[in-house]
Amino acid sequence: MEAFEKWESEIRGYSRTYPTVFASASNARQTDESGRSFIDFFAGAGVLNFGHNNPRMKRAMIDFLEADGVAHSLDMATTTKRDFIEKFAETVLAPRDMSVRMQFMGPTGTNAVEAALKLARRVTGRRDVVAFTNGFHGMTLGSLALTANDYFRAAAGVPLDHVVRLPFETAPGGGLEQLADFRALLEDSSSGILPPAAFVVEVIQAEGGVHVASAEWLREVQRLAHDVGSLFVIDDIQVGCGRTGSYFSFDGMGLDPDIVCLAKGIGGFGTPLAMNLVKPEHDAHWSPGEHTGTFRGQGLSFVAGREALTYFDDDALMDRVHARSEVMVVALTRIADEADAGFDVRGRGMIQGLDVGDGVLAKAVTKACFDDGLLIGPCGTGGRVLKLIPPLTIDDEDLTEGLQILTSAVHSTI
Amino acid sequence: MEAFEKWESEIRGYSRTYPTVFASASNARQTDESGRSFIDFFAGAGVLNFGHNNPRMKRAMIDFLEADGVAHSLDMATTTKRDFIEKFAETVLAPRDMSVRMQFMGPTGTNAVEAALKLARRVTGRRDVVAFTNGFHGMTLGSLALTANDYFRAAAGVPLDHVVRLPFETAPGGGLEQLADFRALLEDSSSGILPPAAFVVEVIQAEGGVHVASAEWLREVQRLAHDVGSLFVIDDIQVGCGRTGSYFSFDGMGLDPDIVCLAKGIGGFGTPLAMNLVKPEHDAHWSPGEHTGTFRGQGLSFVAGREALTYFDDDALMDRVHARSEVMVVALTRIADEADAGFDVRGRGMIQGLDVGDGVLAKAVTKACFDDGLLIGPCGTGGRVLKLIPPLTIDDEDLTEGLQILTSAVHSTI
Amino acid sequence: MEAFEKWESEIRGYSRTYPTVFASASNARQTDESGRSFIDFFAGAGVLNFGHNNPRMKRAMIDFLEADGVAHSLDMATTTKRDFIEKFAETVLAPRDMSVRMQFMGPTGTNAVEAALKLARRVTGRRDVVAFTNGFHGMTLGSLALTANDYFRAAAGVPLDHVVRLPFETAPGGGLEQLADFRALLEDSSSGILPPAAFVVEVIQAEGGVHVASAEWLREVQRLAHDVGSLFVIDDIQVGCGRTGSYFSFDGMGLDPDIVCLAKGIGGFGTPLAMNLVKPEHDAHWSPGEHTGTFRGQGLSFVAGREALTYFDDDALMDRVHARSEVMVVALTRIADEADAGFDVRGRGMIQGLDVGDGVLAKAVTKACFDDGLLIGPCGTGGRVLKLIPPLTIDDEDLTEGLQILTSAVHSTI
Amino acid sequence: MEAFEKWESEIRGYSRTYPTVFASASNARQTDESGRSFIDFFAGAGVLNFGHNNPRMKRAMIDFLEADGVAHSLDMATTTKRDFIEKFAETVLAPRDMSVRMQFMGPTGTNAVEAALKLARRVTGRRDVVAFTNGFHGMTLGSLALTANDYFRAAAGVPLDHVVRLPFETAPGGGLEQLADFRALLEDSSSGILPPAAFVVEVIQAEGGVHVASAEWLREVQRLAHDVGSLFVIDDIQVGCGRTGSYFSFDGMGLDPDIVCLAKGIGGFGTPLAMNLVKPEHDAHWSPGEHTGTFRGQGLSFVAGREALTYFDDDALMDRVHARSEVMVVALTRIADEADAGFDVRGRGMIQGLDVGDGVLAKAVTKACFDDGLLIGPCGTGGRVLKLIPPLTIDDEDLTEGLQILTSAVHSTI
Repeated sequence: MEAFEKWESEIRGYSRTYPTVFASASNARQTDESGRSFIDFFAGAGVLNFGHNNPRMKRAMIDFLEADGVAHSLDMATTTKRDFIEKFAETVLAPRDMSVRMQFMGPTGTNAVEAALKLARRVTGRRDVVAFTNGFHGMTLGSLALTANDYFRAAAGVPLDHVVRLPFETAPGGGLEQLADFRALLEDSSSGILPPAAFVVEVIQAEGGVHVASAEWLREVQRLAHDVGSLFVIDDIQVGCGRTGSYFSFDGMGLDPDIVCLAKGIGGFGTPLAMNLVKPEHDAHWSPGEHTGTFRGQGLSFVAGREALTYFDDDALMDRVHARSEVMVVALTRIADEADAGFDVRGRGMIQGLDVGDGVLAKAVTKACFDDGLLIGPCGTGGRVLKLIPPLTIDDEDLTEGLQILTSAVHSTI
Repeated sequence: MEAFEKWESEIRGYSRTYPTVFASASNARQTDESGRSFIDFFAGAGVLNFGHNNPRMKRAMIDFLEADGVAHSLDMATTTKRDFIEKFAETVLAPRDMSVRMQFMGPTGTNAVEAALKLARRVTGRRDVVAFTNGFHGMTLGSLALTANDYFRAAAGVPLDHVVRLPFETAPGGGLEQLADFRALLEDSSSGILPPAAFVVEVIQAEGGVHVASAEWLREVQRLAHDVGSLFVIDDIQVGCGRTGSYFSFDGMGLDPDIVCLAKGIGGFGTPLAMNLVKPEHDAHWSPGEHTGTFRGQGLSFVAGREALTYFDDDALMDRVHARSEVMVVALTRIADEADAGFDVRGRGMIQGLDVGDGVLAKAVTKACFDDGLLIGPCGTGGRVLKLIPPLTIDDEDLTEGLQILTSAVHSTI
Repeated sequence: MEAFEKWESEIRGYSRTYPTVFASASNARQTDESGRSFIDFFAGAGVLNFGHNNPRMKRAMIDFLEADGVAHSLDMATTTKRDFIEKFAETVLAPRDMSVRMQFMGPTGTNAVEAALKLARRVTGRRDVVAFTNGFHGMTLGSLALTANDYFRAAAGVPLDHVVRLPFETAPGGGLEQLADFRALLEDSSSGILPPAAFVVEVIQAEGGVHVASAEWLREVQRLAHDVGSLFVIDDIQVGCGRTGSYFSFDGMGLDPDIVCLAKGIGGFGTPLAMNLVKPEHDAHWSPGEHTGTFRGQGLSFVAGREALTYFDDDALMDRVHARSEVMVVALTRIADEADAGFDVRGRGMIQGLDVGDGVLAKAVTKACFDDGLLIGPCGTGGRVLKLIPPLTIDDEDLTEGLQILTSAVHSTI
Repeated sequence: MEAFEKWESEIRGYSRTYPTVFASASNARQTDESGRSFIDFFAGAGVLNFGHNNPRMKRAMIDFLEADGVAHSLDMATTTKRDFIEKFAETVLAPRDMSVRMQFMGPTGTNAVEAALKLARRVTGRRDVVAFTNGFHGMTLGSLALTANDYFRAAAGVPLDHVVRLPFETAPGGGLEQLADFRALLEDSSSGILPPAAFVVEVIQAEGGVHVASAEWLREVQRLAHDVGSLFVIDDIQVGCGRTGSYFSFDGMGLDPDIVCLAKGIGGFGTPLAMNLVKPEHDAHWSPGEHTGTFRGQGLSFVAGREALTYFDDDALMDRVHARSEVMVVALTRIADEADAGFDVRGRGMIQGLDVGDGVLAKAVTKACFDDGLLIGPCGTGGRVLKLIPPLTIDDEDLTEGLQILTSAVHSTI
């Protein structure tokens, strides 16, 4: 670790939480240079839905490299990019009858959100954007203004403006009645609150503490947005790409977002990619090259990302997600019951959170897990929620073992 | 191209400038799916300093994939990342006696600039940042505030504040005298201008039109910054990594920046990577995880980037850069002389610009080049400057042929 | 009127509502140059609590002028200012045991609010301020950010930031429960809402539509402010100085504001004066001259304002306010009952509002009143509330006659 | 003084500089309650151009009070206001063939500037405004953003944005060449600087240190403003109303401002009044009541202000201003010459500044003057400039005596 302590910035975080040097990884396992293997319930913060070094992707990437594919293309047209686009259209869009344009940008989630904000402001001619308590949308100045966490916000060094903050459904004061009140305020020309450019919402607040919105509330957010001329934007960066048991986290909810922000999982292999799905009538407001980004055409990400889409050719993986979700919920509920300490279990599909009510305790459990060979990460206010987001492809044995380690860690800690 | 027209956002730009579908690429050549080969003077907007599909990097990446290396690690410690860090320290830092920390963030240049801004504001407790006319620093809200181009700025939809704009050395009113005047204003408590958190400058404004700052002026910017307690930040994203004939564009100028922003070329293969070099006394102001980014630990980029650093083990490549730079300058000067239309040739090393004084003309030349098999991109105000940034590894034949195509294109266009 | 149409700005408003040229005024009567007399239920927008040309003040002002008193003194010490200060301390502060400092600034309400904002931000080191829906606090950029009305806000031409908007007690979603929810959000470090510098509230929203806050709710606002380290600021500009039947609108509510903003009525005669009452521990944060204003020392205003304070030497005027308030409420309630159109009567003391539910109707009633010799002004969202704020010193006959005119006007209009 | 120390805010300033309690005042003399008389070279910060208790105004005001004139009218039409408007049109506008509308607002200079900013932003649809180093335009948030002095700006507690700061003609880097450079930047779409809504300038920077702009430079500012579609706004609040020997400070310079901001002197007696003169084509952008202010119709100010205008019925006063200006310049120049310490004498008409190069020295001189019976105020960076702005009506004896006191004070101090 000396090299990191000597040369890397003090800002490094996960190398402190998991103090070892990893040398290789495969599906839901990471192995350090001493040969010690860890079960991975963290999956690169929700990126590695299809596991570390997914063999199908690995094969496709090596083939691509050997064929001298165009690895870096900005937004030039390439055969590889076309393959991705067509596969996405066929696999994701066609079955849902979604009519959208795909916009590529700098390959990070925050860039996707920044692009969405620009477009929503352009389309509506408005400035303020509604974001929700406990929301997480990125670290660059535009998306950071939406992100709720004080720790991140305090690093900005400048005011984070142009955002109206509403309580998320599950936060104090949140819910349908609050939306009705807010609607009344928007309709009162003396309320001091103008209709916003957009409502930007996560279906499940992952970093924010695994808070799950209901379909009913989301529909009302969308209805309100549209009634007041705002765009309805879903940030599906962390919980899209199959995480909840369906491609989008909002599938089946009767929603029709104006923009969907995707990143993390869509590159498949951990290779960077970000993409917004934009309704054509909004997309038409862009002029060529208005929002650029050097790395917006990543050949390797397109190759791996295309391969990832094949997991949605049939229901096999999603069926397994549902089944494993059950396993996770059962185990977590038992932990909570046995602890009898007011723990809360929340989640959907293969994102599940165990809210232990206290960041210090969660940190201790995280450490105990690491010591016993499980990588898990805390989230939420003060880091009080243990977030379980293993690869969707995790073996049943690893899942079971990981849950046992977690159970023991909680037992030994509380 | 139909797939792109049907599915991709209207924002796409380069696929309009270069209307063909590329299938493969090698060193300074891109080949489209019909088998037509193009010489590449654009190099992925300055990313591909070591050519498309650099064979040494390709080999290393395939080995890495086959060995199940950790492709995606956030800021966990990995052997691959350590190899990169140590190689960078040994190859770049040690010979220059640079004492800095390496900070990794979301792998795009704009993320690097955003992180630098946060830190400069944190360290100084100040808010405003000095940026220069014609500067380009990225597309997310914080860095976009520094970027000068109106077209990009107009897309923000919110005010871009907290920036004091000064003329670049070569802009109207710019130069040493202007810096002296600005210093006087900073020292006058009634000037309405407070000392900034940072002066952020490019040594060569690439997107801005290939404007080259002198060492003397840059030293004065640095001196002024330090005299008033500001950080001196060099954005070396586009012209670093050997582009000018030395690793950093500011090598040998007697400069000692507080932060250096790097991206583009450091991933070597076109694989995304961004990194700030930060003086330890400033870096100490970061708390763990204050500025995160999902894709900040990219195994493939570390592997290829490490390989790229081997080009700096000896002087061979840099010597060739100097030689080819000469060839480029000679050709461009001849074009300018023959045109006798007030063209200007500017640049250093293997970034050279031909300012034809008019965006419409530059666009026509770009098109003529494409038609004749050369990829070249315009930059600067109104797109009036043809920017030549071929791979540093370009074959002499390709360089010569490319310059001939450009010469003919200019002849046939004016 | 020609001179006004020819020379005065198009922005003029009241000369359109009351299209005649006034020549003289006495107590609750204004007389135009044709000799026509109007009863004044508007009282200079709440300034003339003691009537037009109050004879006691007139006498004192003429004496002052004849004695060559210091009419304009900035914040130099004058005998006249001392008389005012001492009288205020003796009459208003001493009986309430209030320990505050008096701060004078440019003599308009908006300047008082701007000064309060600066101090609250200084004291707390925070930036955002909580303001309420339908609030009115002034027209300059700092206070306008707190003002809720869209019409006024739209004139700013720049973003009005650094304000968190909460529903007033009587607005949709407002009330104690909302304050509890907001408290919970302030205590959650991931809510995206930081404790503000101040909560700025009107006890009765006058311009906003005569919305009356309860003591219980105001106490909870104050408690919340103090619990989270914010200042509790009462803007008593329009409803202070006896309007509600006591000197301050918040008397007897168990409140202890950190800053009270006063203007309008304190100059007594319509002569400009503004003053903040600031708790000494906050006032100590000011350095000399940090917030100046040319007209902050107005001799005539001090003279008339001192005279106004003598009305609080005994209970006579306040007793009459209570009695007349009853008369007003009875008359308005009868109007509302007879109209049977969902009208609402709201108010306290001698500020009473008749909410007729519709701005067009209110405008028609206002016109009918004017035609019949009564000056009355609409307020609230869309101007739907007729606001009755006659001089506190109005004769019983004029009050009765004015209410009769209003009654007839409503009858003839609906 | 105890009452002030006990009850008044710590922010008080002039009562510290002039530590006595004034009881009466007449023309250029103020007398304290002990009977000590002071010559007044400060004139209420440039308000009392016609002296304390000007007898003509006093008479008119008493008559007005006795006739029960309308003292407070918001923007209703009154005979008194009409008299003022017509007199202003006849005396000031007609001889200059100025076609403008008069806009009244809250009666302080800062309110006038705020209104001008709103209108300029409305007319142009732009946000940023150009202001100059050392400029002073007020204390409320909008005008404070234009004010240059750090001490005042630091009190804001929020960013002061939407202003582009240029060097005033006499500041480092200022002048015609700078304007040419700035014009070039405005015309370059990659400069990062957009054409502003307005250029707001003082002809003589009074608070800023008595910096005098040339007609040529001002004409070029105006030309530049109009060439780029910006409004040209003159803030004549402190040096208008005859101070420079003509009604406007810019008379005879070939200027035609879009908006002129007036306050201070126009109320004549020290009674508050503020007014913008707005070209009709711009004024037409206002909607009724968009920028209000309770005290915008001040009867006493109109009466005294109308009387003040009679001083411009003939040339007598302005001729005396020129003559006394000479006397002042001669005396100050002699002081500077005798001191031989690099003092600078600057000014025009009866605003003259003695720049002694150092705030500590200026403060000592100010104190020595006070001790010897002269009121004078420092201004400029660090308070290093002694500003002489006696009433225009000062007796020759008082002027001479005051200059002698100043001469002695300088001699005894340096």
